[in-house]
Amino acid sequence: MDGLAQLIAQLGQQARAAARVLATTPAARIDAALAAMAKELLVAQTDILKANAADVGAAKAAGQTLALLDRLTLTPERLAKCAEGLRQVAALPHPVGAVLREWTQPNGLKFAKVRVPLGVIGFIYESRPNVTVDAAGLCLKSGNAVILRGGSEALRSNTAITAALSRGLSAAGLPAHAVQLVPVTDRDTVRLLGEAVGVIDLLIPRGGRGLIETVVQTARIPVIKHYDGICTVYVDRAADLVMAEKLIVNAKVSRPGVCNAAETLLVHRDIAAKFLPVVGAALIKAGVQLRLDDAARAALGDLVTRHSSLVTAAQPADFRTEFLDLILAVKIVDDVAAAIEHIETHGSHHTDTIVTADAATAEQFLAGVDSAVVLWNASTRFNDGHEFGFGAEIGISTDKLHARGPMGLEELTSYKYVVRGSGQTRG
Amino acid sequence: MDGLAQLIAQLGQQARAAARVLATTPAARIDAALAAMAKELLVAQTDILKANAADVGAAKAAGQTLALLDRLTLTPERLAKCAEGLRQVAALPHPVGAVLREWTQPNGLKFAKVRVPLGVIGFIYESRPNVTVDAAGLCLKSGNAVILRGGSEALRSNTAITAALSRGLSAAGLPAHAVQLVPVTDRDTVRLLGEAVGVIDLLIPRGGRGLIETVVQTARIPVIKHYDGICTVYVDRAADLVMAEKLIVNAKVSRPGVCNAAETLLVHRDIAAKFLPVVGAALIKAGVQLRLDDAARAALGDLVTRHSSLVTAAQPADFRTEFLDLILAVKIVDDVAAAIEHIETHGSHHTDTIVTADAATAEQFLAGVDSAVVLWNASTRFNDGHEFGFGAEIGISTDKLHARGPMGLEELTSYKYVVRGSGQTRG
Repeated sequence: MDGLAQLIAQLGQQARAAARVLATTPAARIDAALAAMAKELLVAQTDILKANAADVGAAKAAGQTLALLDRLTLTPERLAKCAEGLRQVAALPHPVGAVLREWTQPNGLKFAKVRVPLGVIGFIYESRPNVTVDAAGLCLKSGNAVILRGGSEALRSNTAITAALSRGLSAAGLPAHAVQLVPVTDRDTVRLLGEAVGVIDLLIPRGGRGLIETVVQTARIPVIKHYDGICTVYVDRAADLVMAEKLIVNAKVSRPGVCNAAETLLVHRDIAAKFLPVVGAALIKAGVQLRLDDAARAALGDLVTRHSSLVTAAQPADFRTEFLDLILAVKIVDDVAAAIEHIETHGSHHTDTIVTADAATAEQFLAGVDSAVVLWNASTRFNDGHEFGFGAEIGISTDKLHARGPMGLEELTSYKYVVRGSGQTRG
Repeated sequence: MDGLAQLIAQLGQQARAAARVLATTPAARIDAALAAMAKELLVAQTDILKANAADVGAAKAAGQTLALLDRLTLTPERLAKCAEGLRQVAALPHPVGAVLREWTQPNGLKFAKVRVPLGVIGFIYESRPNVTVDAAGLCLKSGNAVILRGGSEALRSNTAITAALSRGLSAAGLPAHAVQLVPVTDRDTVRLLGEAVGVIDLLIPRGGRGLIETVVQTARIPVIKHYDGICTVYVDRAADLVMAEKLIVNAKVSRPGVCNAAETLLVHRDIAAKFLPVVGAALIKAGVQLRLDDAARAALGDLVTRHSSLVTAAQPADFRTEFLDLILAVKIVDDVAAAIEHIETHGSHHTDTIVTADAATAEQFLAGVDSAVVLWNASTRFNDGHEFGFGAEIGISTDKLHARGPMGLEELTSYKYVVRGSGQTRG
């Protein structure tokens, strides 16, 4: 075993030992530890900001984008918000220990399905150091030990943050190894974490497509991932067109770089000539590039020529692309069945909305579209743990196993069956 | 793409198309299809038994064990039982469509978490052709299409069975491809099924350790597996010793070849001298080989010399072995904490029992042992879908993600969030 493999094995062993302690740690002590972690984060503010300044300086010198520099930069305010986030997580209900189901069999055996921590979570992410705090807090609250593998740009910041969090854990009498950072960012560490069979119970990669594909290609342990969000808004013949315009503008424009932003607009043929010029004007006004199929171009009228820089013909790939930008692919469909067919063929099973006043059509769409979140008369942007009322979110799963859609605290748990008897044997 | 890869891709495509139909098929029609499948199984009895006779003949000629021949052999009675099993599954409650949780957010959005099928399940198993029928029935009842990859010994039987099941599906107006058999049994098909990203939603391997390790090493899609069942009975100081004897004999002897049979007996030091000679005599009488640590040998008294062929010194590996045979490893421990420590270190997180009259000790054990099923004063043999009252079981998961312990119909489903609004946008 080489040095890197030894390092990951050691982190894994320490995490498992911590997880065993956490599994039977009372809820109040976990909350006390979260508060202590918040406190230590503020105590260490000078160290953390100094480490962060070094990260930011190196990133600038390396010519990183402004967007990355912004995500990377910590300020006293941002750090205070991280600490406040830990206190908010402490105030949430505890997922562990909940009895999910109880029943008694005719032979007198009493069964209980009880929520338990997963054990050890591996969390792989990219440049934002505040994610280090969020992930540590959510994993601890759900009774799990976590091994964090952040991006290389944030290594100094994450090291200082994790040291503070571990001091908080120790101060509260919990194992400092409940939160550990992989102290190097070699690409191989991603593979090694994914090979930690029997050590890491769940690997959550959060980041760009390249990272996630690497994890999926190499992992031997369970992974919950977040692939593309190719989200669609379908405007039905029976839609309230004022509502439809408001929803698609919100879904596309309010935050185009996130996964729950809309990438495709499908419009029912019967209302296209009426709706598209209006919504097209609103989108163009918001700076959105429109990529239209032939029928949509025809329906858009003179906007096509008046805004030729923003309005172009759609290529087939446009309907399979997560633009993460002010770009929208637009297509005319014959009916709700064609909309469902398009979404099932081209979408990414993330988030899809129908706008219609017709309940039967809506229910057909909600049943027929196999996505994590399907909405009726609401923006795709609502696929979000906070908007769901989960109080916290570690990611949005595009998988169908274990957790689908927004992942809060409950999604970081497993269960076990506790069976209480009086000497029953099996015949 | 070579021929085998093309074949698997085609099966996958057909399964996905079938799954899309099943996702919105009414429950009554699924039950009608299960009944039609049962009927076609009996209509095809002559063909199926003929195919089975050819499989059995080939297995005999190949010198297969009697145990395998027995598992492989179909009779009119066994086939009738398979058909009856389909009818019983039809009579179970439908998992799909259940609303798991409903709530409304302050902005008026109404959220529902709704159970949906997983989609396409890949099921890899070994020689018993009745599993073909069981797996097809459970997957269909839960709204899933299934691709079955059985063992080579049963290929003729499985081909005839699957043809009958498909005729039943067609007769009921459902896609015949909802149940498909991989028509070849090259080892490569296991790998190809595991690489069907975006096509197969869940792969369930059921069989020997070699098969499961191959799947785990090669799969790129989610797998729920069943590794070793190294199950333990811990007899506490405060145990009712008559009950303890009855439970360990049941756990070890009633069916030693199955995963929920006990492999290890831990005995509290304070009662060892009293308990071990009694339980030892009972186990020896039942033909059980005892492998004892030094303290247990001392406590066993003159049984050690009187039954030297059955009583030997335990090697360290004996406490990490799934014997699947009339062999039991026995060890003395100081207290319940030592028992928990032993189980967490040596066990397989499958099924573990404490025998005690002391409730606090029992709860310490039930909380501290991280196994799929933990029992108090009951035999390990109760880790079983039927004993749980699930009505059906496709396997017992030793994983912690998605499904843990007995897997019934609910464990073959996922969920989606359905959100109903009135024009809400996100701020």
